[in-house]
Amino acid sequence: MSASTGGEQDSLAEQLVHRLTTAGRTIAVAESLTGGLVTAALTAIPGSSACVQGGVVSYATELKAELLGVDPSLLKQAGPVDRGVAAQMAEGVARACASEIGLATTGVAGPSEQGGVAVGTVFVAIWSPRPGESAVSELALEGDRAQIRYQTVAAVLRLALNRIDPENARQ
Amino acid sequence: MSASTGGEQDSLAEQLVHRLTTAGRTIAVAESLTGGLVTAALTAIPGSSACVQGGVVSYATELKAELLGVDPSLLKQAGPVDRGVAAQMAEGVARACASEIGLATTGVAGPSEQGGVAVGTVFVAIWSPRPGESAVSELALEGDRAQIRYQTVAAVLRLALNRIDPENARQ
Repeated sequence: MSASTGGEQDSLAEQLVHRLTTAGRTIAVAESLTGGLVTAALTAIPGSSACVQGGVVSYATELKAELLGVDPSLLKQAGPVDRGVAAQMAEGVARACASEIGLATTGVAGPSEQGGVAVGTVFVAIWSPRPGESAVSELALEGDRAQIRYQTVAAVLRLALNRIDPENARQ
Repeated sequence: MSASTGGEQDSLAEQLVHRLTTAGRTIAVAESLTGGLVTAALTAIPGSSACVQGGVVSYATELKAELLGVDPSLLKQAGPVDRGVAAQMAEGVARACASEIGLATTGVAGPSEQGGVAVGTVFVAIWSPRPGESAVSELALEGDRAQIRYQTVAAVLRLALNRIDPENARQ
């Protein structure tokens, strides 16, 4: 299994690390279905320690509440694959890792559906204290477990690049 | 860049997930230089949620103390690339993630030395409450940043397979 899909992830990660480092901003990542792949893609870039604080892989649902501060009643009501959960994971990991910006992934990589949620249902999120930078995207992905995980990595990196102002230097 | 080196990591991860799941045991991973690759290798295996609780990527040194409970005076005295730090990261992530067993990686992936510690200096650790299963290994790895990261992933998975009793069922 390859960690990259035609190098797209590596290129997106490099662009994001460059943009954050140039602006003097920091980032952390909360990962569920991607299991560490997003943070691994960012930290593959030499010099990434200037902007990457770290991350939390909250694979077990209870860790989303305990380590990331996701509302337990929301987790109970909506389950872990939910727009609001993704948003709270992104904000929670920024706080937990003393980082300015947070990213998050949650979804069903398969091979089986999870609590009635179809394989390929994925939410990716970015949280930032700056106006207009926070967002959640819902994805309906196709492919096997590995393909869904790698498409999710690319999607959350693209979301970050779309949302983080490229002109916005350190404030 | 490939996530695997001839499939060795994938095979080691599969063996470890199988052994833990069969025994009804749980695991969590604290990663520094590997940046999420160990947890990603384990969660690539379908059904890994039965044993993988999650993980913490403590890329910034202060997160090793704040999220994993590593002794701040040890970090100050020895720096983040240290045998004792690796051991405390492994124990700390097990506690933080409510997991029985903890793994950890810390080291210098390069391209530059870090605080006087040479590129390729790496510690991998396992912590378990059972006698004889906890250990730390020091590695002196060669290669580029990616090669050092992937060799570290394989090393910590091999350490776990060497230490976790294959015959030891759920207690």
